[in-house]
Formats: sequence, structure tokens, C-alpha cells
Amino acid sequence: MTEPLDVARLQRRLVEFAAARDWQPYHTPKNLAAALSVEASELLEIFQWLTPEESARVMADPGTAHRVTDEVADVLAYLLQFCAVLDVDPLAALDAKIDRNEGRFPAAGDRTEAERG
Amino acid sequence: MTEPLDVARLQRRLVEFAAARDWQPYHTPKNLAAALSVEASELLEIFQWLTPEESARVMADPGTAHRVTDEVADVLAYLLQFCAVLDVDPLAALDAKIDRNEGRFPAAGDRTEAERG
Amino acid sequence: MTEPLDVARLQRRLVEFAAARDWQPYHTPKNLAAALSVEASELLEIFQWLTPEESARVMADPGTAHRVTDEVADVLAYLLQFCAVLDVDPLAALDAKIDRNEGRFPAAGDRTEAERG
Amino acid sequence: MTEPLDVARLQRRLVEFAAARDWQPYHTPKNLAAALSVEASELLEIFQWLTPEESARVMADPGTAHRVTDEVADVLAYLLQFCAVLDVDPLAALDAKIDRNEGRFPAAGDRTEAERG
Repeated sequence: MTEPLDVARLQRRLVEFAAARDWQPYHTPKNLAAALSVEASELLEIFQWLTPEESARVMADPGTAHRVTDEVADVLAYLLQFCAVLDVDPLAALDAKIDRNEGRFPAAGDRTEAERG
Repeated sequence: MTEPLDVARLQRRLVEFAAARDWQPYHTPKNLAAALSVEASELLEIFQWLTPEESARVMADPGTAHRVTDEVADVLAYLLQFCAVLDVDPLAALDAKIDRNEGRFPAAGDRTEAERG
Repeated sequence: MTEPLDVARLQRRLVEFAAARDWQPYHTPKNLAAALSVEASELLEIFQWLTPEESARVMADPGTAHRVTDEVADVLAYLLQFCAVLDVDPLAALDAKIDRNEGRFPAAGDRTEAERG
Repeated sequence: MTEPLDVARLQRRLVEFAAARDWQPYHTPKNLAAALSVEASELLEIFQWLTPEESARVMADPGTAHRVTDEVADVLAYLLQFCAVLDVDPLAALDAKIDRNEGRFPAAGDRTEAERG
């Protein structure tokens, strides 16, 4: 029986993985933020010379699809490790942010006459 | 009764949020990868002049803690939107990556005599 | 009479500027590399939602043109400060790199029959 | 007889290099800004797990020194190509920015009694 995949379980695996290799001294919030930004750039690198249309078709090539998936994993890994060391709940943070953005950016159907101009 | 927060539900909220504002034409994989990398840099910016020790204490200041949480939300938002447009499962990607890394980086206790040298 | 602008003179101004404000302790190579990457992302942010065609016209809008020029200045400032603290000559580095790339990527006219296929 | 190295000459070499390989269609301002940011992250990657003290000694190791120099060249290459396609003068931009910053951040010796508090 496998438990369903969830963020808390993956975060626990990552923390145990780093602890078993004595990597915690390297995992300062600053270093993890740098590593997160480096991995996000590696994901962007795949797209840097592509047209918008080509960028929509990257998963059609198995080699590129694997690279994309691998970089997504790296970005998420460092984001979850960053959140673990600072005790930030990323899902609650995003939920609250979407709530705030719903106020800041009214949807087309929610705008008043005045806003639509 | 609120459903528990999970990635799939947040991803659905983000997709609906963008659709309600007609933002899909902007949400090419290339643009979302660029936005993800820009947000990861905004998180790094908070730490760029801090010592490792100062970086470990950022959550003690309420203003900085709010900024950190906000940037974490932005990074996760673009990562989930990127995954939505390319139909990548970020949790499965990370789970598979940790499996692979367990083979690549044996833990201290798992190393053979020969590897410990 | 003004001296012509050159990299060495600008680098000197930047180093004196930082010294006069006691900023050298913050200017470790690691911090300057982080700041350089943050500024490069701020430049990218201007373009993140633009089509290729719109991106070619950014200088037509005075506000955007000013923002682009300002971010270019910030990227160059941190690059030159990084090079100053590590005693790297950026112009010599680039000159040597172009030499190497001329070998790695033959120009259309320089390719042999065999390479053209 | 070699001309002295200067930014305008390197920029000319870069533009000719790209033209000889028919790379101009890829060199939109948006793509060059993305590539610049990717290269800046590759420079940061060298430093991501280093302490501030280790980061100050990177040039002592010939392999790392070569990697640093190579990434500096790449960052400068994309910055100059970006400036070439948008007709931005990077040295004038930086000179103007330092002028503005001298007003924004008074040096220790220039501060009035009131500012020193």
C-alpha cells in the first residue's frame, strides 16, 4: 500500500535525504534561495531560443519532456526545502495570495460599469 | 467545511483565475518559465546581502516574513501554472527524482568500505 | 574636457562609490553574483509577457526605454564589481571566448562540404 | 598591431559572429534578456553552496577560475548583444546611473549632521 503523494510527505523525504548526507550546514535559507533560482533558470534555458509556438510543443519530444520534468522536480525540491528550513507553509501561502489577488484583479464578469470604462 | 489544501485544488484555482481574466494567451510555457525564474530571483533578492546567520533569522521580522511568504506563493503559483499548461505532474516528478538521487548519492550509512576509502 | 567612457574608469568609480559607503563587507563574490543574477531577472521581467515582436519595440515607449536602460546599468554595475573583487578582466575573458567559439561554431561560409551534408 | 580591447569592438565581433551563423532571428531582445539571466545564474551556481570566505578564494583553484572567467564572458556577451539590438549604450547607462546614485546614497563624509542623526 502506497500513501498518496502529497507535499508534506515529499518534504519529509527531502529533509531526511539531506540529513542522511549531512547536507544541512549547506542548506541555509540563502543558499536554498540561490539554488532555487539557479534551477528555475535551468528550466528557462530549455525555452530561451524557442518561439511561443515551439515552447507549447516541448513535451512532444521525449528527450526535452524528460528535461522539463527533471527541472520541475529540482525547482519544487528546493522550494520545499527552503520552506522546511524556514517553517513556511507553501500551500497556505499560495491560497492566501490567490485570495488577495481576487481583490486586486477583478475578473471580467465581476467588474463594475465604471471599471469597464 | 473546507476541503484540505492540496496542490491539485490550488492548481485548479490558478487556472480558473487566469481564464476569468483572459490571461491564457500570455501563459505560454516559455513566458511562465520566465515568470517563475523572475519570482525565484525576487525571493533571492531578500537574502542577497545577508550573512548565512542573518538569513536563518529572516522570519523573526514580521515585514520580512511576509515578503518571504509572498514570494514563496508567487514561485509556487508560476510553477503550478507551468505544470498545468504542459500537463506535468510536479509531485510525481519530484518523487521520481528523489528515487533516482537515492541511487546517485548514497547516504553515509549506506556506503561500502570501498566508497568510504 | 571629459575622458572617454571606458570600462576601467567605470569600474574605478564603482569601487570608490562602494568604499565611500563602507559597502565592501557586503561585496563578497557570492553576494555580487547573486545581485547580478537578481538584476538580470529584473531586466527579463520587462519582457516576460511580451511577444517577440513587442519585445523588439520596447524602446519606442519612453518609460519602458528608461527602465531597460536602468536595468542594463545595474547588470553592468554588478558584473564590473564582481570582476573587480576577483580581479577578472571581463573584456579579455570575452575576447578569448569569442576566439574559442569561432572554432566551435564554424560560420556558414567556413563549413566544409562534409559538414554541410 | 592589435587595437586595444574595447566594448565597441567586442560588440562588433559578437554581432558579426551571430550574423555569420544566421542567428539574428533568435536574437530578439526578449530571448537575449532570458539568455543573459540564464548565464548570470550559471555564474551564481558556482557560488551557491560556498561560505562567504570560500567564495572569496574561488580564483585559487585553476578549474574554478576558468569556469568563473567563462561565465563572466557569457554574461558580458549577452549583455552586449542585448544592447546592440536595442541600441542602448551600456557604458553611458552606467555612468548616468552612478551619477544618480551619488545623489541617492550620500557617502559617509558627505552626510549632514541631520542625516547622521
